[in-house]
Amino acid sequence: MDKSKTITAKLGIDVGGTDVKFAVIDNNAIVYRSKIPANKESVDAILNEICDECKKIAKEYPYSSVGVGVPGIVYDGLLTTINLPFKNTPVAKEMEARIGMPVAVDNDANCAALGEVLGGGGKIYRNAVLITLGTGVGGGVIANGEILRGRGCAGELGHIIIQSENGRKCTCGQTGCLEQYASAKALVRQATEAAGEHPDSMLAQLYRENGELNGKLFFDALHKNCPVAEAVFDKYLDWLCVGIKSFQMIFDPEVILLAGGITKQGDNFLKPLKAKLGEGINVKIATLQNDAGVFGAANLSM
Amino acid sequence: MDKSKTITAKLGIDVGGTDVKFAVIDNNAIVYRSKIPANKESVDAILNEICDECKKIAKEYPYSSVGVGVPGIVYDGLLTTINLPFKNTPVAKEMEARIGMPVAVDNDANCAALGEVLGGGGKIYRNAVLITLGTGVGGGVIANGEILRGRGCAGELGHIIIQSENGRKCTCGQTGCLEQYASAKALVRQATEAAGEHPDSMLAQLYRENGELNGKLFFDALHKNCPVAEAVFDKYLDWLCVGIKSFQMIFDPEVILLAGGITKQGDNFLKPLKAKLGEGINVKIATLQNDAGVFGAANLSM
Repeated sequence: MDKSKTITAKLGIDVGGTDVKFAVIDNNAIVYRSKIPANKESVDAILNEICDECKKIAKEYPYSSVGVGVPGIVYDGLLTTINLPFKNTPVAKEMEARIGMPVAVDNDANCAALGEVLGGGGKIYRNAVLITLGTGVGGGVIANGEILRGRGCAGELGHIIIQSENGRKCTCGQTGCLEQYASAKALVRQATEAAGEHPDSMLAQLYRENGELNGKLFFDALHKNCPVAEAVFDKYLDWLCVGIKSFQMIFDPEVILLAGGITKQGDNFLKPLKAKLGEGINVKIATLQNDAGVFGAANLSM
Repeated sequence: MDKSKTITAKLGIDVGGTDVKFAVIDNNAIVYRSKIPANKESVDAILNEICDECKKIAKEYPYSSVGVGVPGIVYDGLLTTINLPFKNTPVAKEMEARIGMPVAVDNDANCAALGEVLGGGGKIYRNAVLITLGTGVGGGVIANGEILRGRGCAGELGHIIIQSENGRKCTCGQTGCLEQYASAKALVRQATEAAGEHPDSMLAQLYRENGELNGKLFFDALHKNCPVAEAVFDKYLDWLCVGIKSFQMIFDPEVILLAGGITKQGDNFLKPLKAKLGEGINVKIATLQNDAGVFGAANLSM
C-alpha cells in the first residue's frame, strides 16, 4: 500500500432495524461491502460493534471519512430513533472518539436522496425529490444542492394530506396521507379489496390460490391483462400522481426520482405514470435503489 | 452628507400589476417610501421609469444596493411575467446598466417570505414557510436559510392537491388545489353557499342587504355569533389546517407565518386555528404583511 497516495475513498454506513450495511465508495463506485447484524441492546454495544467493523474495513480498504445514515431524527448533532436505542445521542462525536476520523450522521431517507442524486446516472441535480414506495411512502429532498432538513424532520413526503374529506386513517395520526394511497402496501390493499369485489377475476383467483395477495401476484395478474388488476393499477397511479404533482408545485425540481420494489416494473410502471403526468414533470426510476443509502451516507461530508 | 460614512441602506422594489412600490431600508427599518404606477407598455418603458425613480430616491436617501420583487418566474437571471411585458428579460443586468449599482431580482412571493423572516419581529428563522391567504393562496419558503427556488417556480403552496376525489377545479388546471379551499376568495364562496342554504341566517340577511358577501360582511356575521358563519369558519379552518400540516411534514420549519387580509382578525383567527393544529406546529401571523415584499427585496443581496 502506497501511504503517500492521497486516500479518496469514503466509508458509507446504512443502519437498519435488522442489519448495518457498510460500503467503501471510491471514484463514485462501491469498491468494498460488508454487513453486521444491528445490535439493539444498548447505544454503547451498537456503536462499539459498528466502530469495530469500521476499523476492520480500514485494514482492507483505507478511507478518509465516514458517513452514517440512520432511521431517526438528527437534531443539533443528536440522534433519536424509534427502533434502535439512540436517544439524543451525539453519534458522530461518539464514533469520532472511537475511530479517530471525521464522521457525519443524517437520516437514512435523506442519505438515500443524496445518494441517488449524486450516484444515479452520474448527473448531479441541484433540486431533486426522491419518493420511495414501500410499506410506507418515504423520501428525501435536495434543494439548492443541499439536503432539506428543517429542524431535523423535513421530507416526510408520505404524510402530505391528499384526501381531506373521508380520508383513510394513517399510522401518523392524520387522515388522508399520501402513504395510505400510494405505498406498495396500499396497492396490495387496493388489489385485495378489488379481488373481493370481483370474485370471477384473475386477481380473485390468485387470491384464493395463495390465501393472500402480494406485489408479485398483483403484477402477475396485471401482465396477464386482468382487467380488474388494470383498473386497480390505473387508480393507484392516479393517487401517486397527486403526490408527484404536489411535490412538483412545491419544489419545482429538475427531477423526481422513484424508488422501491414497484419501480422494478420499469417501463410498465413508468410509461403509464408519465402519460398521466403529462409534460413538465421529469420523473425517473432511481438507479441505485438499495445502495442509495450507503452511497449518500459516504458523501454526507461533501 | 458625510461621504466617508459607509452606506448601509438598501433599496427594495415591489413590482405589482398596478403600482411599483419603493422603500429604502436602513437598520432593519423602512426609512423612505415612494410609489409609481406600473407602466405596462414595454420592457424599456417600465425599466426606464423604475430606474428614474431609483435615481431620484438616491438623492433623497443614498443606498448601496437594489433588490426587486416581481410577480413572475426568474430562471437563470431571466424574468418572465404574465401581467407585465417581461419575457426572458435579464432585469438585473438591464437595471445595473441604467443605475450603476448591484441589482438582484426574485419572485415577489419569495421576497415576501424573506422579508417576513428577516423583518418579522426581528427573529431570523433558518426554516420558515409564509402562506398568504388572498384571492389565491401564495407563499414562499426559506429552507436552510435560503429562498427555496427550484428551477424558478418553487413554493407554489396554493397548488398542492388536498382533495384528490371530487376536488374543485382550479385555475391552474388541476383539481382539488389548496387554493380552492383555503384562499380568502374560497372563504367568501363558502359563506355565500351557506347563506343560500340557510336563508334565515344572519349571513343570508347580510347577503340580501348587500347583494353579495365579502370578507368584512362574513366576519361581521361571525362576530355577531351567527351559527352559520361559525360553521363556515370552522370548516374553512379545517381546510387551511390540512395545508399547514402538509407543509409542516414537508419542511419541518421553525415557524409557519400567515399573511393576508384574513389574518387582520388576529386572535379570532389564530386561536381556533392553533386549537385545531395542536402542539408541534408553530404558527404565527406575519408582522410586515404588505411591507414584506419591499423588505425582502431590499435584502435579496444578503
